[in-house]
Amino acid sequence: MKQKDAMSTIVWRFINIVASKYEMTGKSVCIIGAGVSGLVAIKACLEEKLQVTCYEQHDKLGGVWYYTEEVRPNQGPSAYATLVTNSSKDMMAFSDYPMPPQYPPYLPWEKFTEYLQNYADHFNLAKHITFNTKVVSVDPVEDKEGRWKVCVSNGDSKSEFETKFFDHVIVCAGFFKNPVIPEIPGLQNFKGKVMHTHSYRSPEVFKDKTVLVIGNANSASDAATDAATYAKKAYVSIGDGTWVLSRSAQQGLPRDFMLRRVLMNFAPQSVVSRILMKDCNTRFNHEAFGLQSTQRPMYGSAVMVNDEISYKIISGKLQVKATVVEFTEHGVKLEDGSTLDGIDMVCFATGFKVDFSFMNEQILKVTNKEINLYKMVWPIEQRVPSIAVVGCFSTVGAHTPIMELQSYWAARVFSGKCKLPPKTDMKKWIDETIETQIKNYGKLKIKLHQLPYRDSIAEEIGALPNIKSLLLRDPAMAMRCFFGPAFPYQYRLTGPLAIDAARDYCINAYDNTVNATKTRIARTKPGSGNVGLILFIFLAIIAVILAILIR
Amino acid sequence: MKQKDAMSTIVWRFINIVASKYEMTGKSVCIIGAGVSGLVAIKACLEEKLQVTCYEQHDKLGGVWYYTEEVRPNQGPSAYATLVTNSSKDMMAFSDYPMPPQYPPYLPWEKFTEYLQNYADHFNLAKHITFNTKVVSVDPVEDKEGRWKVCVSNGDSKSEFETKFFDHVIVCAGFFKNPVIPEIPGLQNFKGKVMHTHSYRSPEVFKDKTVLVIGNANSASDAATDAATYAKKAYVSIGDGTWVLSRSAQQGLPRDFMLRRVLMNFAPQSVVSRILMKDCNTRFNHEAFGLQSTQRPMYGSAVMVNDEISYKIISGKLQVKATVVEFTEHGVKLEDGSTLDGIDMVCFATGFKVDFSFMNEQILKVTNKEINLYKMVWPIEQRVPSIAVVGCFSTVGAHTPIMELQSYWAARVFSGKCKLPPKTDMKKWIDETIETQIKNYGKLKIKLHQLPYRDSIAEEIGALPNIKSLLLRDPAMAMRCFFGPAFPYQYRLTGPLAIDAARDYCINAYDNTVNATKTRIARTKPGSGNVGLILFIFLAIIAVILAILIR
Repeated sequence: MKQKDAMSTIVWRFINIVASKYEMTGKSVCIIGAGVSGLVAIKACLEEKLQVTCYEQHDKLGGVWYYTEEVRPNQGPSAYATLVTNSSKDMMAFSDYPMPPQYPPYLPWEKFTEYLQNYADHFNLAKHITFNTKVVSVDPVEDKEGRWKVCVSNGDSKSEFETKFFDHVIVCAGFFKNPVIPEIPGLQNFKGKVMHTHSYRSPEVFKDKTVLVIGNANSASDAATDAATYAKKAYVSIGDGTWVLSRSAQQGLPRDFMLRRVLMNFAPQSVVSRILMKDCNTRFNHEAFGLQSTQRPMYGSAVMVNDEISYKIISGKLQVKATVVEFTEHGVKLEDGSTLDGIDMVCFATGFKVDFSFMNEQILKVTNKEINLYKMVWPIEQRVPSIAVVGCFSTVGAHTPIMELQSYWAARVFSGKCKLPPKTDMKKWIDETIETQIKNYGKLKIKLHQLPYRDSIAEEIGALPNIKSLLLRDPAMAMRCFFGPAFPYQYRLTGPLAIDAARDYCINAYDNTVNATKTRIARTKPGSGNVGLILFIFLAIIAVILAILIR
Repeated sequence: MKQKDAMSTIVWRFINIVASKYEMTGKSVCIIGAGVSGLVAIKACLEEKLQVTCYEQHDKLGGVWYYTEEVRPNQGPSAYATLVTNSSKDMMAFSDYPMPPQYPPYLPWEKFTEYLQNYADHFNLAKHITFNTKVVSVDPVEDKEGRWKVCVSNGDSKSEFETKFFDHVIVCAGFFKNPVIPEIPGLQNFKGKVMHTHSYRSPEVFKDKTVLVIGNANSASDAATDAATYAKKAYVSIGDGTWVLSRSAQQGLPRDFMLRRVLMNFAPQSVVSRILMKDCNTRFNHEAFGLQSTQRPMYGSAVMVNDEISYKIISGKLQVKATVVEFTEHGVKLEDGSTLDGIDMVCFATGFKVDFSFMNEQILKVTNKEINLYKMVWPIEQRVPSIAVVGCFSTVGAHTPIMELQSYWAARVFSGKCKLPPKTDMKKWIDETIETQIKNYGKLKIKLHQLPYRDSIAEEIGALPNIKSLLLRDPAMAMRCFFGPAFPYQYRLTGPLAIDAARDYCINAYDNTVNATKTRIARTKPGSGNVGLILFIFLAIIAVILAILIR
């Protein structure tokens, strides 16, 4: 085997010498996975003239967004029938491929899958993907170029393994793989059905059952509201509580339009967190609804993006319950001493464990105790930055634009256009991140604040919109970049990723999202009042305040 | 027949003389229908020592709230599987029978049916109901007492008709009976399924279909959100638009907690309407969502109580469309010139026509051109006020407390404890109401402003909480009655309906509703900030405002 490796290295170098002589193509890159990260990584690498080979274990692109009636083998999280994006369309678009105007502000999975397919078609990405091929192992060749030996399999039998060599590797395989079911005493004696949202496909599974959903984040909220619609009776046990973020926020603007640099990068985050709490409680009182979190949002608390749960609770179709401490044969005991009986089905919406089992764990270390990834992309122990990870993080807000920036960063480091900082600086980032994470969440959760993290990667590339320089030549756009929603298109305004169309994309983004629902226009509008009424309105507001204070 | 009538009149008078001699019972009353109005009318009449006979055409009490898998013959609107009350529980309770604490703030139909059954059981009302008996006609005997000849049938065949005589009649039969399907050209050629919400039972009827719902009020919003959940594709054509009132309003308080005397009876209604518009648009922008009404709420516009429609629209599961001007074989043409094709099913949520066909129309006149009912209860042409109507109105907010007051009013007029004003005053109320209605709605809609109308009936009985007298002996309660939510229990504080428990009912009502969802209590709460942050928050708010202004 070793001899074969050495042999292939020689052949490889020879090919490279020939290729560079005839200016054929750049170095080779192996991209593992053709989900959102994989697709944009292909595109980024192609732009850097790298030779791209992407291996996708399944027969379709789209990763978690490709819905199947049965969960595919070796799949982590995956779209279920009722899944709708948590981010609005222009906040989760690729920066050079805006969403079509007729798409709704928040996309059901089938629309986002369609968008990914169209993206792949438009940029001709699919021809670089080898489908039905699973990466079995990734090992360093240990040469001075830092090349990689990738072992792939297109079948189940060992005989079909194939070994390939690449200059670079980008791991886009998803990192949440194994469903977590917490250890709760008595679970093995529970006679009802036990499932995890991992295998949750369609709400009909809840029909006519008494369902208990356990969890306090997005998948729990989806499963719980679906259960409230379909089940005979539905409970959600939400542990330490949660904050519910409606998709439709102030004035019906998408919630994530609040991702603005003025708020997220400039104002103190503790203030933003308090504003968010206030807003959440204005929609409905989290304490009265039993949802009260022990922590603040952005500071350790779970959040759920959900627009229906308040109706389900207020109409009694869903009851919020305390932490489950023990299972009985047909029910549970709760932390507050009460019990729930006659439970037919328990649905754990308790997330996934990180799994990079195909990787040598010396290379990728992501556990709930340590990480070795500079800005969640670069394993810092590598002598040569020839391996990168894309999509290994979680955040509140769209993942797509972060994956895109990570991909461009990786491709540009591979092509030599970007340099990584000294190892000590990289180590410092990791240490500080671990410290903040543990402070916020009590453990390492690789849950990063969307905009500061995203912008810090853009900064590495030089793609962060240069507000100072914009202020001189396009002040309105500078204002948009600072005060307005931080659309991904803004990374295309200045710097190495700039494209001419970006300005239009930025200007159109607001209407492209907000007006997508304007499928009817009223002939006339009722008058919105006159100045003479303002005093009266003021008095009425005072009366309302009094009315609220006095129950 | 005439001879028989005269005979029975003589027998009747004789019985009455004997009865009064032995202080047996009061006069007789026939109550038509055992829905919400009928039940409370039975109770009110029993309290006035009247001999009650209630005829209910079906085999169960509860009227529109009794859900059946098939619509029962001769039923108007009726509960469908997904129906939830539009009013919060303590705002729609009977004034002497609070809702149980474990009921959710808004009741699914089955809970409200249960409540009605419990109410009937508690006050022993069912023994006064003759089930499966339909009132075929109601005619005046034309004697000086103003008695009534009621013809009933307990079968379909004419031979089973029976004639009864009563001193009084209360019509509680419901007034919306016949589904309205607007005349739209081409409808007869449409090849898809055509239904009306009248026969809508369960959302599964929409499954895998492309559905167009037509309408802009409550039933349209329910059918449209159900279609958005179950159908392949869903549209709602909303004519002149609508205002969406979420059940959960500011701070998660029930929307109808805004029914406070300070706002509804004191502040100018045009200001309240503007505050409401502002609040609706804060939840989501009605214009951007295609819902924009041409009129203001409370002034001619349709409203829909709905908490889910914004999510259905923002996720593209429901598309709002303009007025349908023509049907084609498989679709529709819209007012804005566009078309919708491939429609499998049209669901008209276009309401019901008033029908009192069993009544002599000289007695009850309720059309979209005229009414003859003083405060929607008393036909003013009657020489003796021996016939009353309960439940013949529509309003935004709970109907139950109004029906209760109407019933007590009727019973107390029958028993002589209340007097009606002179006919000219009654005529004046009718004329003014017609005028206001036509001004607001362009036609007579008998849609009355909840609190002013309700209080005006309470005033007739003397049951309106006397805030001035309360201010002296129970100032906190006076404040509640003026500034707080106008719970029906308040009519039991002072005046002839007063009961000792009312004060507790009033005080508990807020918690009884709001804390019903508090089925989990958080161990700790995150800090809500300190004074030092206030300046920063202020600055941040300014930044948000700027951020909103600058798109």
